[in-house]
Amino acid sequence: MEIFLYRQDAQSVEEGFSASHLPQLLADKTNVVWVDLMGDTDEGIEEAKQVLLEIFHFHPLTVEDCVETRNAPKVEAFPDYFYFIVHGIRPEETHHTNFVTKELDGYLGANYVVTFHIEKFQSIKVVKQNVRSSTFACERGAAYLLHQVLDNIVDLYMPIVDDFDTAINDLEERVFQTRSGYNILLEEIMDVRRAVARLKRISARQLEVLYRISHGEFPQIPAPVLPFYRDVHDHLLRISDLSENYRDLVAGLMDMHLSVVANRTNDVMKLLAIFSAIMLPLSLIAGIYGMNFENMPELKSAHGYYLTLGVMLLIAVVLMVYFWKKGWIFQPAEHEIKVDPSKEE
Amino acid sequence: MEIFLYRQDAQSVEEGFSASHLPQLLADKTNVVWVDLMGDTDEGIEEAKQVLLEIFHFHPLTVEDCVETRNAPKVEAFPDYFYFIVHGIRPEETHHTNFVTKELDGYLGANYVVTFHIEKFQSIKVVKQNVRSSTFACERGAAYLLHQVLDNIVDLYMPIVDDFDTAINDLEERVFQTRSGYNILLEEIMDVRRAVARLKRISARQLEVLYRISHGEFPQIPAPVLPFYRDVHDHLLRISDLSENYRDLVAGLMDMHLSVVANRTNDVMKLLAIFSAIMLPLSLIAGIYGMNFENMPELKSAHGYYLTLGVMLLIAVVLMVYFWKKGWIFQPAEHEIKVDPSKEE
Amino acid sequence: MEIFLYRQDAQSVEEGFSASHLPQLLADKTNVVWVDLMGDTDEGIEEAKQVLLEIFHFHPLTVEDCVETRNAPKVEAFPDYFYFIVHGIRPEETHHTNFVTKELDGYLGANYVVTFHIEKFQSIKVVKQNVRSSTFACERGAAYLLHQVLDNIVDLYMPIVDDFDTAINDLEERVFQTRSGYNILLEEIMDVRRAVARLKRISARQLEVLYRISHGEFPQIPAPVLPFYRDVHDHLLRISDLSENYRDLVAGLMDMHLSVVANRTNDVMKLLAIFSAIMLPLSLIAGIYGMNFENMPELKSAHGYYLTLGVMLLIAVVLMVYFWKKGWIFQPAEHEIKVDPSKEE
Amino acid sequence: MEIFLYRQDAQSVEEGFSASHLPQLLADKTNVVWVDLMGDTDEGIEEAKQVLLEIFHFHPLTVEDCVETRNAPKVEAFPDYFYFIVHGIRPEETHHTNFVTKELDGYLGANYVVTFHIEKFQSIKVVKQNVRSSTFACERGAAYLLHQVLDNIVDLYMPIVDDFDTAINDLEERVFQTRSGYNILLEEIMDVRRAVARLKRISARQLEVLYRISHGEFPQIPAPVLPFYRDVHDHLLRISDLSENYRDLVAGLMDMHLSVVANRTNDVMKLLAIFSAIMLPLSLIAGIYGMNFENMPELKSAHGYYLTLGVMLLIAVVLMVYFWKKGWIFQPAEHEIKVDPSKEE
Amino acid sequence: MEIFLYRQDAQSVEEGFSASHLPQLLADKTNVVWVDLMGDTDEGIEEAKQVLLEIFHFHPLTVEDCVETRNAPKVEAFPDYFYFIVHGIRPEETHHTNFVTKELDGYLGANYVVTFHIEKFQSIKVVKQNVRSSTFACERGAAYLLHQVLDNIVDLYMPIVDDFDTAINDLEERVFQTRSGYNILLEEIMDVRRAVARLKRISARQLEVLYRISHGEFPQIPAPVLPFYRDVHDHLLRISDLSENYRDLVAGLMDMHLSVVANRTNDVMKLLAIFSAIMLPLSLIAGIYGMNFENMPELKSAHGYYLTLGVMLLIAVVLMVYFWKKGWIFQPAEHEIKVDPSKEE
Repeated sequence: MEIFLYRQDAQSVEEGFSASHLPQLLADKTNVVWVDLMGDTDEGIEEAKQVLLEIFHFHPLTVEDCVETRNAPKVEAFPDYFYFIVHGIRPEETHHTNFVTKELDGYLGANYVVTFHIEKFQSIKVVKQNVRSSTFACERGAAYLLHQVLDNIVDLYMPIVDDFDTAINDLEERVFQTRSGYNILLEEIMDVRRAVARLKRISARQLEVLYRISHGEFPQIPAPVLPFYRDVHDHLLRISDLSENYRDLVAGLMDMHLSVVANRTNDVMKLLAIFSAIMLPLSLIAGIYGMNFENMPELKSAHGYYLTLGVMLLIAVVLMVYFWKKGWIFQPAEHEIKVDPSKEE
Repeated sequence: MEIFLYRQDAQSVEEGFSASHLPQLLADKTNVVWVDLMGDTDEGIEEAKQVLLEIFHFHPLTVEDCVETRNAPKVEAFPDYFYFIVHGIRPEETHHTNFVTKELDGYLGANYVVTFHIEKFQSIKVVKQNVRSSTFACERGAAYLLHQVLDNIVDLYMPIVDDFDTAINDLEERVFQTRSGYNILLEEIMDVRRAVARLKRISARQLEVLYRISHGEFPQIPAPVLPFYRDVHDHLLRISDLSENYRDLVAGLMDMHLSVVANRTNDVMKLLAIFSAIMLPLSLIAGIYGMNFENMPELKSAHGYYLTLGVMLLIAVVLMVYFWKKGWIFQPAEHEIKVDPSKEE
Repeated sequence: MEIFLYRQDAQSVEEGFSASHLPQLLADKTNVVWVDLMGDTDEGIEEAKQVLLEIFHFHPLTVEDCVETRNAPKVEAFPDYFYFIVHGIRPEETHHTNFVTKELDGYLGANYVVTFHIEKFQSIKVVKQNVRSSTFACERGAAYLLHQVLDNIVDLYMPIVDDFDTAINDLEERVFQTRSGYNILLEEIMDVRRAVARLKRISARQLEVLYRISHGEFPQIPAPVLPFYRDVHDHLLRISDLSENYRDLVAGLMDMHLSVVANRTNDVMKLLAIFSAIMLPLSLIAGIYGMNFENMPELKSAHGYYLTLGVMLLIAVVLMVYFWKKGWIFQPAEHEIKVDPSKEE
Repeated sequence: MEIFLYRQDAQSVEEGFSASHLPQLLADKTNVVWVDLMGDTDEGIEEAKQVLLEIFHFHPLTVEDCVETRNAPKVEAFPDYFYFIVHGIRPEETHHTNFVTKELDGYLGANYVVTFHIEKFQSIKVVKQNVRSSTFACERGAAYLLHQVLDNIVDLYMPIVDDFDTAINDLEERVFQTRSGYNILLEEIMDVRRAVARLKRISARQLEVLYRISHGEFPQIPAPVLPFYRDVHDHLLRISDLSENYRDLVAGLMDMHLSVVANRTNDVMKLLAIFSAIMLPLSLIAGIYGMNFENMPELKSAHGYYLTLGVMLLIAVVLMVYFWKKGWIFQPAEHEIKVDPSKEE
Repeated sequence: MEIFLYRQDAQSVEEGFSASHLPQLLADKTNVVWVDLMGDTDEGIEEAKQVLLEIFHFHPLTVEDCVETRNAPKVEAFPDYFYFIVHGIRPEETHHTNFVTKELDGYLGANYVVTFHIEKFQSIKVVKQNVRSSTFACERGAAYLLHQVLDNIVDLYMPIVDDFDTAINDLEERVFQTRSGYNILLEEIMDVRRAVARLKRISARQLEVLYRISHGEFPQIPAPVLPFYRDVHDHLLRISDLSENYRDLVAGLMDMHLSVVANRTNDVMKLLAIFSAIMLPLSLIAGIYGMNFENMPELKSAHGYYLTLGVMLLIAVVLMVYFWKKGWIFQPAEHEIKVDPSKEE
């Protein structure tokens, strides 16, 4: 548990308080208090529960939700404060196109922010540094302080969204390459598809939460701070739009993959048909002159063998011309298509 | 029929009443009365009808709906009470990914809860145990008591949702395995798809009901109890989100299955094309030298046979190199793909 | 034209009036009058027009709509009455999964119900019998009488919905059976798909109409009768939900069918590939020893023929083991899949 | 430019006025004036602009929109009048399933209707005839006159919708016929699909316009005339519903076409597999006995040849029975499926 | 930075002011001031920031958004002004069906317009010329001036939309041509699909912005100017409708492409099947008479060889007639389908 106190009169940020100081700090309405609770250990959770229930007297249900994970983003109003859940994301270690969500629970009151999280949050670390290095983040009150946390969380979505962009462009090139293992490619496409769908869903729920927070529904956020929340909302909206966009692109990838496989099966079939169409008649001719009839005059002619070979060659050439005219053979290769890397705005 | 009575003055829970006591118990507005009616026998249904119509004087239409099954979740307001239908689910015995819904009908008045069900409800059993073991569940009034029933019903959705997760991960692995029977796999995917679609539909209707109940539409639920209902609503929302998620995953499975079959057909075609492309020319050569022309000088040469075999071998090698260059043969196997088990949040 | 009169003072239902009595009957506001007009003959239509325009003075446009068919369900308010169109359905004679819609037009005023239909309505016949056998249906006024007609119409949707259930389960089993003619099956699936889509559309429009009627928009329906209309609305909602469900199931059938055909093509290809892969090399060997080179030492060896046959057998066995390892042959048959009949709630 | 004047006092319709009379005619509020402007020539457009801007003083933007084509249906309110754009349709000459839209612009004021169109409108011609033959169309005022124009425009949608019905039924039959050229069929399906999608889009926008006009938003339409507009709206709603329906049917056609092609490929594959499976083993046997080994005892036996032929026949029969058992050959033909022509309501 | 000043009293447009004049110019409420800021250089951005923050005192967040790119279109209200982001588009140099978006940020106050852009805007250049050549554009105030900028931006969408039309018609023709490289065609279809999807998304967001601006939400736009904004909105609506339309057409293209490939695979299969079905039996016959049995009476007959050849010919003819009856060969070519160029309205 870390407690930050900004005293308006002193214009300074102090640290190092413990839970027992809180009632007194909160009583002074000109103070801005930030309590950051970590739930990474059982003791941390116990302590958090105690602080939330016995010092802040938050609604027990919200405290329960705090401690649990697996909650969807939401915001709930109470007379003196509101409770919210938002999700941060970070890239998964092994798959660069996959990501892990982590839950941030929090409360905003008139002069305090409470945050609770089980995993470490890069964005909270950044805001703490800001708070320590300058009083700027605290001067505008608790609502502005919370805005900074949310802003940093949403900003960390962007690198992951950019990774999707790279991954989809990469897959698009590989879809047309002959040597790609079909099933490996397929699995990767499905991985991105799942990740994009998750991003869309997560940002949709968060958008609802941020929309409500940023449109003046909660009196804890004074009007001059609202534009800052709307700004966070708009950033998330852009991420949501991009993930919608990626969803279309991935669906397009899947369609392309299926078409490319169908085209290749078509190519294989053509090759087989050409080979069969040329070889079978020639084999038939050879088979005919391999018959053992006693009376087959051609067999006795001096040039019969050479004539037969000539006819075979002729048939082969005629059929090849026929298939070339149909466009089945000797077409320019088309696998070196350049995929335009700048297709996204 | 089981009747529970919580007397506020006595702060105790009593049992063992019969229908004839009800009017008296209900008359005392400080009491909390819970009447649980079982419709598993014809007598039970008759008794329930009598109690609902003649003691509680509920609207006859709602009593009809109570007794019938095959109703969708709903909630209907009347001046002194509201009537609701919600659905509980339990796993089907044979298919672990399928589930059975059962209907719970009920009424909430100022100081009473009436529940009616034909099948046994695990969740009602749990709440009865709570009521017997402590007065806590009753102290906050009838609305809080009902909340506990609903909360337990929704909690029992979660294990089934987790089963879907397991089933989908399992299917995902099997889609890429060569030896899976295609049609068996297909049937299993369709089973999960149907079950997920049902879960989505059922939770959508319930969400409507819980949304209306939890947003203060009914005066039978006092404001301090509303957050508890909202909590149930949020849990169900998460289940609904998850089933939406599973629907996408199952649709993805289906697409993957189709792609994998297309890829395998492509592989089979390639094998056939390769075999034909190599064997047919060799057979032609053998056929040519099996012709019976009298004048075929090669046949007389001492090494003609060995040369012919050599040419055949050469053709075979050249064609195999060609196909290897095209990436059709001697590719690394790609069936041992590891499916990442942690792809869901 | 049939006219039913319920006199509140006499508490009896009378019949046998003609159009000329109507003004007098309607003038007594305590009466409940039901005028059922049949438009199956040209005279019937003429009479109906006259009654509607000259006795009831309904808006001419609604009278035009009455007489036409091919109208969508709707409800339109006028100062003293409202006009509605609803659709009844009955199974088509030849296709048990298809159905025919028929239009019921009507008006509800303070003390009268007017119904007009061109086809016979089973549901109207039932209500007439009720009216004749007991005054119960009329005692609660015109609005309750109309409710009974609508209730019976909606009840007759259910058997058709159950037919869909049976038809879809039947098709599901046949999709996996090998001997089903593909195109016949396909045509039947499309028939059910069309019928289900129509049911969905028809019930969607009706739901709108019933929603408006049952939510107190029209003063002709007194508040105590509204729950009865809401009940009809809820029944139709369930039918609409079921048809939504069937739509998913039929879409699933179509996907399954396509997958099964793809799987079978894959099976055929495998068989072809196996036959070719085994036969072509053996034929090549036979072809080689059928060449007429003079110097082919093997031909002279005493056991050459048997050795060759042995080598052929060996190659065949090796290739069959190879294909068995690949899982292409000697797999357990998978067509006897049991489809679980209880998959719907 | 044609001007029609209905004088309420004279109860007659007069014609033959020019632009200069208009201010005077409009000044008498009991008159009903209809100005129909044709924009098929440059002079017509110039004249129209002048009349609209200098006599009626309409907003310049609406006059600009009038003169342009390529506008979407819309309605815009101004203090004394409203401006609207609606689209009429007529079948294209060459494709009976395609249609051409034409734009009708207009203004409705208290006592005047102004219409502007570049192409001829069948519906306007009809209304003009009505106006000339009877004063009925004008008696109820300008709003009723406009209603007649719109009603006629919407009525002319119906024959085109019926053409879709015929075209789709025809395509449905041809999808199952073997001799249909695949790509011609495909192109025709796509043509209908495009036309239906356009109809849906066009009627959707018009519905919005008619909904606003028919729900009392504009004071130029007196309440008693509103039901007539609602009637037009309902007719268009039915057309919109039908086009929604056709969209489903065409999507079904496309699915059917793909399935039929897949089934036929499956049939072709089976034929190929059967031929190969029967011919290749027999050829192998012939090849074996065509080998030139010196020591092949069978060759010397008197009945070896006949035995071999017998064995070949036996193998052929056994394989054919096998394929018949698998259901691959000698199945009843299934191309003569009758498509039920009455599948639409 | 360019500053335009329209003095109402002087009725003239002046230029050549610098930032320091601005406070004075803005103070006179009868002036109309347009400040166009270019952010193409770092100095430009610095200057812009200074002007926006220190002279106009706009909200710092909006200034931040101005300077950044990658923002979605939006509009935000402040007491004295509103801030907006809209996107212009221009064709990409290399792909005529792709386009590049560029961001225009701006502010509208009572008597000023501020625009900020990093890329050059054709539409702003046009409005500057108008402003210089006539006072007309300024006379109606700042809101009308801004309308002109937006109108020109939206007008420049149209040529790109027309390019899509051409590109889709072109692709439609090529889908049916045999010689088109499948994958190149596929890639082009996907390119158009992506571009159309982007256009749809971009215009959707802009529509929201223009809807809000044009419906009287902002007091900076006086009522008489609103119709001009609604006109811009309607133009954009038409573009949005067209892009919706193109999305359907491109989805249709993709379906057609897949069907055409399926049909061609079917054709290839048929050819293969026909060749095999004709050649394999003939080869078998040749193989049979190539066997070396001593007792094969046919071999000795004088006409055996010719009879055999005759039988072969007969079999070939019979099979070809069979395949012709099945409609597999000698069908009229169907690749010369004319695609009707006028299929879009």
